[in-house]
Amino acid sequence: MTEPGGPRYPRTAVVLTASDRSAAGAREDESGAGVAARLEALGFAVERAVVADDRVEIEAALRAAAERHPLVVTTGGTGLTPRDVTPQATLAVVDYEVPGLAEAIRAEGRLKTPLAALSRAVVGVRGRSLIVNVPGSPKGALESIEAIVPVLEHALETLAGPFDHGAATDGGMVRAGDAAETDAQHHFGRDEAFVEPEDAD
Amino acid sequence: MTEPGGPRYPRTAVVLTASDRSAAGAREDESGAGVAARLEALGFAVERAVVADDRVEIEAALRAAAERHPLVVTTGGTGLTPRDVTPQATLAVVDYEVPGLAEAIRAEGRLKTPLAALSRAVVGVRGRSLIVNVPGSPKGALESIEAIVPVLEHALETLAGPFDHGAATDGGMVRAGDAAETDAQHHFGRDEAFVEPEDAD
Amino acid sequence: MTEPGGPRYPRTAVVLTASDRSAAGAREDESGAGVAARLEALGFAVERAVVADDRVEIEAALRAAAERHPLVVTTGGTGLTPRDVTPQATLAVVDYEVPGLAEAIRAEGRLKTPLAALSRAVVGVRGRSLIVNVPGSPKGALESIEAIVPVLEHALETLAGPFDHGAATDGGMVRAGDAAETDAQHHFGRDEAFVEPEDAD
Repeated sequence: MTEPGGPRYPRTAVVLTASDRSAAGAREDESGAGVAARLEALGFAVERAVVADDRVEIEAALRAAAERHPLVVTTGGTGLTPRDVTPQATLAVVDYEVPGLAEAIRAEGRLKTPLAALSRAVVGVRGRSLIVNVPGSPKGALESIEAIVPVLEHALETLAGPFDHGAATDGGMVRAGDAAETDAQHHFGRDEAFVEPEDAD
Repeated sequence: MTEPGGPRYPRTAVVLTASDRSAAGAREDESGAGVAARLEALGFAVERAVVADDRVEIEAALRAAAERHPLVVTTGGTGLTPRDVTPQATLAVVDYEVPGLAEAIRAEGRLKTPLAALSRAVVGVRGRSLIVNVPGSPKGALESIEAIVPVLEHALETLAGPFDHGAATDGGMVRAGDAAETDAQHHFGRDEAFVEPEDAD
Repeated sequence: MTEPGGPRYPRTAVVLTASDRSAAGAREDESGAGVAARLEALGFAVERAVVADDRVEIEAALRAAAERHPLVVTTGGTGLTPRDVTPQATLAVVDYEVPGLAEAIRAEGRLKTPLAALSRAVVGVRGRSLIVNVPGSPKGALESIEAIVPVLEHALETLAGPFDHGAATDGGMVRAGDAAETDAQHHFGRDEAFVEPEDAD
C-alpha cells in the first residue's frame, strides 16, 4: 500500500461528517471533502460517512470506524450549542483523551482567529485508533488538520504498537530500533516513543 | 434595550463573587465590581451577587443565574487550595465545558504572569447560558474578561439559537443569512456559526 | 531545614518513575535521576521510587507519596498507547486537576518540538500535595520541570495552607501579610494568593 521504507501500519482513515443538513442532503459536505483530500495527499486511503448531529448516531459511527481504521476524523458539531454533540459523543467512546492535541489545534487556530477558542473539539484514543474532532467549516477543518500533521505519523506509529514497554519488540509491526535516537525518543523516552525511524532501504 | 442593529439576545449578565470574606462583609468585592463595570461598558445590564466559598451555595447561585441570564461570570475560588471550589461547582452544573475559552484565558494570562497557569477556571454552558470563571483578584479577573471579549458576542449569539441545524431558520431570534460569509462562518461552518452579521439597518 | 526567610512548608519531594523496563532493572532510570537532581538543586530533599507501567501500582505509589510529601513528580507513561497509564492513575487519585499547569508544560514543550502535544500529562492536587506528570524521556522530563519552576514555589506555599479564606491567618504556616501586594496577589486576589512574601530577615 505504501512504498518500501514508508510506515507499516495500515494507512487508512475515515472522515465522518456530523451535520444535520449534510445528512439530509441539503448541503454539500465541503469540509468532509476537504479533509479527505488532505488526508489522501498524506497517503491515506480515505472512507467518508455522513451522520446527523445526533449523539447516538455519532457514537455508533465512531465505534464502527475505530474498529477498522487507525485514524478517524470527524468534522462538525464542535460548536457551542446543544445541537453540537460531537465532542460529547467522542468523549463517550474514547478510552482516554489526548488533550495536548486539542490544545495544539486551538492554540494554532487562535493565531488565525480568536473564534478558534470556541471549538470544543476532542482528541482521544479508542483501541488502536486516534479520533480527532475538527470544526465543520472547510477552513477551520483544514487548519485543524494542519496543526496535527507534524505529529500525526508519530502518533499513528505509536498506536500501531507493540504496546508492551517491557517486551522484546523485534518482529512487531514496528520495532524500537537501536538506531540513533529520534526527536520523539528524546522527548518522550524510548518507552513512549517506541517507534523505529523510517527505513532507509 | 439595545440600539437597532445591535444584538437581539437579552443582554444581561450576573457577576457572582465567591469569597468567604466578601460574603462576611469583611472585604469589599473589588473584583466583582471591576468585572461588572467592564461588562456594563460592553452594554450588559449586570446583577451582582456574593456567596461564600461553599460548593453547594455556588452551585445553587449558578443554577439560578443561568436560568435568567445568557452570561454568568464568577470571580474567586479558582486557586489551588481545597477552599477554592468554584471550578468544581461549575463543572457540576454545566451541560458541557468550553475548554478552549479556559485555555485562551490562561494562555493570555501567561503572557502577563506565569501564575496564570495556576488558575483552575472553568468555562461551560448550562442551557443557553455561558458560565465563565475568573480569578478573584481585580487584575486577574479583568485580564480574563479581556481575553474572551473578542469572542463573547459571537458565543452569546450562537447560544441564543436557534439550535436546530437542519431547520429553516428565518424568523428566529437570529437567522443564518445568505449574506457574505463572516469570519465565524469561515472557521466554524454555517452549522456552527449560525448567526447573522449585525443588521445595517 | 531551610534558611531563615526561606519557605516554611516541608521541602521534600518524591520522584516516581513509571517504567516496565526500569522496574525490571533492564534500563537505568535516567529521567528519574535527572528530575531528582533538578529538584535537589531547587532545595528539595528527594526520594525516588520506580514502579511498572501498571495503573494499580502507580495509584498506590501516588497515594503513599502524597501522604508524606508536598510534591510528587512522576516520569513516564504519559504517551499514547494503552500501556501508558500514568495520567489515568493520576486522575484516579487527585482531588482536582490543575489544568493550567499541564497546558503550560505542553505549550512550552511545543516551542521545542511539536511532539510535546502528544503528552497526556496530568497535574493535580491530592490533599496538600501537588502531583505532576512529566514524560519519560530525560529531555522532555526536564523541560517539563522547567516550565513549572516559575510557579512551583507559589503553588506549594499556597497548598501548605492555611486554607480557610475567612479565618484570621496569623500564626499559621504562612500568613496573608498586610505587606506590599505581590504579583500573585495581584493576579489571584488575596483569597487565592494567601501567602506571605519571603521574610527579609
